[in-house]
Amino acid sequence: MTALGFVGVGIAMGLAAMGSALGQGNASASAMEGIARQPEASGEIRTTLLLALAFMEALTLFTFVIAILMWTKL
Amino acid sequence: MTALGFVGVGIAMGLAAMGSALGQGNASASAMEGIARQPEASGEIRTTLLLALAFMEALTLFTFVIAILMWTKL
Amino acid sequence: MTALGFVGVGIAMGLAAMGSALGQGNASASAMEGIARQPEASGEIRTTLLLALAFMEALTLFTFVIAILMWTKL
Amino acid sequence: MTALGFVGVGIAMGLAAMGSALGQGNASASAMEGIARQPEASGEIRTTLLLALAFMEALTLFTFVIAILMWTKL
Amino acid sequence: MTALGFVGVGIAMGLAAMGSALGQGNASASAMEGIARQPEASGEIRTTLLLALAFMEALTLFTFVIAILMWTKL
Amino acid sequence: MTALGFVGVGIAMGLAAMGSALGQGNASASAMEGIARQPEASGEIRTTLLLALAFMEALTLFTFVIAILMWTKL
Amino acid sequence: MTALGFVGVGIAMGLAAMGSALGQGNASASAMEGIARQPEASGEIRTTLLLALAFMEALTLFTFVIAILMWTKL
Amino acid sequence: MTALGFVGVGIAMGLAAMGSALGQGNASASAMEGIARQPEASGEIRTTLLLALAFMEALTLFTFVIAILMWTKL
Amino acid sequence: MTALGFVGVGIAMGLAAMGSALGQGNASASAMEGIARQPEASGEIRTTLLLALAFMEALTLFTFVIAILMWTKL
Amino acid sequence: MTALGFVGVGIAMGLAAMGSALGQGNASASAMEGIARQPEASGEIRTTLLLALAFMEALTLFTFVIAILMWTKL
Amino acid sequence: MTALGFVGVGIAMGLAAMGSALGQGNASASAMEGIARQPEASGEIRTTLLLALAFMEALTLFTFVIAILMWTKL
Amino acid sequence: MTALGFVGVGIAMGLAAMGSALGQGNASASAMEGIARQPEASGEIRTTLLLALAFMEALTLFTFVIAILMWTKL
Amino acid sequence: MTALGFVGVGIAMGLAAMGSALGQGNASASAMEGIARQPEASGEIRTTLLLALAFMEALTLFTFVIAILMWTKL
Amino acid sequence: MTALGFVGVGIAMGLAAMGSALGQGNASASAMEGIARQPEASGEIRTTLLLALAFMEALTLFTFVIAILMWTKL
Repeated sequence: MTALGFVGVGIAMGLAAMGSALGQGNASASAMEGIARQPEASGEIRTTLLLALAFMEALTLFTFVIAILMWTKL
Repeated sequence: MTALGFVGVGIAMGLAAMGSALGQGNASASAMEGIARQPEASGEIRTTLLLALAFMEALTLFTFVIAILMWTKL
Repeated sequence: MTALGFVGVGIAMGLAAMGSALGQGNASASAMEGIARQPEASGEIRTTLLLALAFMEALTLFTFVIAILMWTKL
Repeated sequence: MTALGFVGVGIAMGLAAMGSALGQGNASASAMEGIARQPEASGEIRTTLLLALAFMEALTLFTFVIAILMWTKL
Repeated sequence: MTALGFVGVGIAMGLAAMGSALGQGNASASAMEGIARQPEASGEIRTTLLLALAFMEALTLFTFVIAILMWTKL
Repeated sequence: MTALGFVGVGIAMGLAAMGSALGQGNASASAMEGIARQPEASGEIRTTLLLALAFMEALTLFTFVIAILMWTKL
Repeated sequence: MTALGFVGVGIAMGLAAMGSALGQGNASASAMEGIARQPEASGEIRTTLLLALAFMEALTLFTFVIAILMWTKL
Repeated sequence: MTALGFVGVGIAMGLAAMGSALGQGNASASAMEGIARQPEASGEIRTTLLLALAFMEALTLFTFVIAILMWTKL
Repeated sequence: MTALGFVGVGIAMGLAAMGSALGQGNASASAMEGIARQPEASGEIRTTLLLALAFMEALTLFTFVIAILMWTKL
Repeated sequence: MTALGFVGVGIAMGLAAMGSALGQGNASASAMEGIARQPEASGEIRTTLLLALAFMEALTLFTFVIAILMWTKL
Repeated sequence: MTALGFVGVGIAMGLAAMGSALGQGNASASAMEGIARQPEASGEIRTTLLLALAFMEALTLFTFVIAILMWTKL
Repeated sequence: MTALGFVGVGIAMGLAAMGSALGQGNASASAMEGIARQPEASGEIRTTLLLALAFMEALTLFTFVIAILMWTKL
Repeated sequence: MTALGFVGVGIAMGLAAMGSALGQGNASASAMEGIARQPEASGEIRTTLLLALAFMEALTLFTFVIAILMWTKL
Repeated sequence: MTALGFVGVGIAMGLAAMGSALGQGNASASAMEGIARQPEASGEIRTTLLLALAFMEALTLFTFVIAILMWTKL
């Protein structure tokens, strides 16, 4: 019955990666629309984009930490 | 049957990270559209964005705390 | 079978954090669009945003209290 | 099998907090758009917003009461 | 197996509170947009809003009654 | 196994209240937009709104009756 | 195991009432928008609305009949 | 285990009534928008609406027949 | 365990009726919008609508046939 | 346990009929909008509509064949 | 327990037919809008439509092959 | 219990075919809108469409391969 | 019980192929709209499209690798 | 019961790949719309696109690592 732990790890990583990717896709889409509309503000926009992508990547990394912790107990 | 606890931790971290990422993506997208439309307000917008991202990151951190607490009992 | 309690805690924290984050993302997105459209009203808008974010953060905190209460009985 | 009660409490608090947060996010978003469009009506709008947020917060508090009642029987 | 009753109570309160909050959020959002567009009709709008919020709050209260009735039998 | 009946009652009341609230929220939102656009028709609109809210409240009351009937057999 | 019948009744009433309410909310919303746009056609519109609401109420009543029939066999 | 049949009847009636109501709501909403835009075509529109509502009501009646047939075997 | 067959019949009829009703509602809504926009083409539109409604009704009838066939074996 | 086969048949017919009806509704809706906008192209449009409806009806017929094949083995 | 195979076949055919129908409906809807907007390009559009419908029909046929293969082993 | 393998094959083929069909429908719809808007670019558009359809068909073929591999082990 | 592994492989390939197809469909749709609006940029657009399709195809290939690895252990 | 681990791996890879693909599709779609609207900014846009695609690909790679780790313990 210990194999149920794999499902837990799977749900955690799967949902977190899925959510982060959807959020990053949404943010990047707006960034590229912004650059196309206002090419001279592209530096400003890309800095903000990287900041936002990093925040969202961090959410998956928190989950990654939890997943590794759980994996050590399986 | 203790492995069911892993599923609980997985649901908590997965859903929280997914929701936070979706919310952050939504907020960042609007921020970048705003900068593209009004580049001179970009400082104002980026400050508000960081504030909002921090609030949303905090929600995942609350869940992170709960997940660690649960992990100590597994 | 006590491990089922972890699932309950996980559902509570996960759903609450996810919902709060989505709501906060929605509100922040509108705030940033508002600042971009009317930069001189940014003070007014940011005050209202903080008020709304606090209300939504409180919902997760109520759930956090319940989660801690449940955790003490696991 | 008593641990199933935790799942019930979790579903109640999770769904209620999620719904309230989504509703509050929706209302706050409109409030901030309204302030940005009509800054001189911001007092009127913020009063209405607080009224609406209180109504929605109350829904989670009703559920909080039920959750505490259920917790005493676990 | 009596703990399954907690799940029933949880589903009832959770779904009802979630639905009511979403409905109230939708109504409040329109109210605030309406006030921003037509500030002189704000009295009229706020009266209608309170009426609608009360109707929706009542739905959760009906469910609250059922939940208390069920709780007495657990 | 009789506790499964609680789940049935919970699903009935939860779904019905959720649906009614969503429907009422949708109708009220349109009513308030209508008043904001055409304040002199507000009497006409509010009458129609009350009529519609009553119809939707009735749906939850039918379910309430069924829920009470089921409760007497639990 | 007879308690499973309660779940069946709950699903029937819950889904039917939810669907009817959503449909009625959609129809009423359009009716009120129509009255706001064309106040002199309000009689015509309200007649059509009542007709449509009655049709949708009937769907829940069919389900109500089935639910009562099932209840007599529980 | 015969009580599982109730769930089948419930799913059939619930889903059918829900779908029919959503479809009827959609059609009625368009009918009322049409009358508001073109009041002199209201006879034509209402005839078409009744025709469409009858078609959709028939779908629930087919399911009603099946539900009664199943009920006789429970 | 034969009662599981009722669930199969229920899923078949429920989903088919729900889908057909949603499709018919969508088609009827467009038909009525079309008549309101171009009243002189209403004959043409109503003929096409009946054709489309018949096609969609046929899908539920195919499922009805399967449901009756399954019912004879329960 | 053979009754589980009924569920399989039900899922197959239910999903296929639902999907086909939704697709046909979508196509018919566009056809009627097209006729209302360009009545002189109605012959062309109706031919294309029949072609598309036939393709989608065929998908349910393939599933019908599979359902009959499965039914012979129940 | 071999009856579980029917569920597998049902899921395969049901989902595939549903998806194909939704995709075909989407494509056909655009085709008919295109013909209504640009009647002289109707030959070009109908050729492309048939090509696309064939591609999507093929997806259900692949699944049909798998379903028949599975059926031979039930 | 080996029959559970059929469910796995069914999920794989069903989801893959459904997703591919939805994607192809989306792409084809845009292609036909494009041809209607710019008939002289129809060669260019149809080439790109075929390329995209082939990519999406390939995803179902990968899954087909896996399904056949799994089928050989059932 | 080893047959549960087939379900795991099925979920992996099914979800991955479905997601990739939806993403590719979305990207291709925009590409074709872009070519229709700006035919002289079609080379540029098609290059970017191929790049994006390759990235998305790679995601399914990663999952394909995992599926083959899992298959070797079934 | 160890086969349950396959399901965990499947959920992880499936959800992650699906989310990444949806996000990448969203971002690529905006990139191509941007190039079509502003062809001279295509270099800038493509660089940002590659950056965003890499971030999203990384999320699936994190999950890939976890999946391989889990696979070694199956």
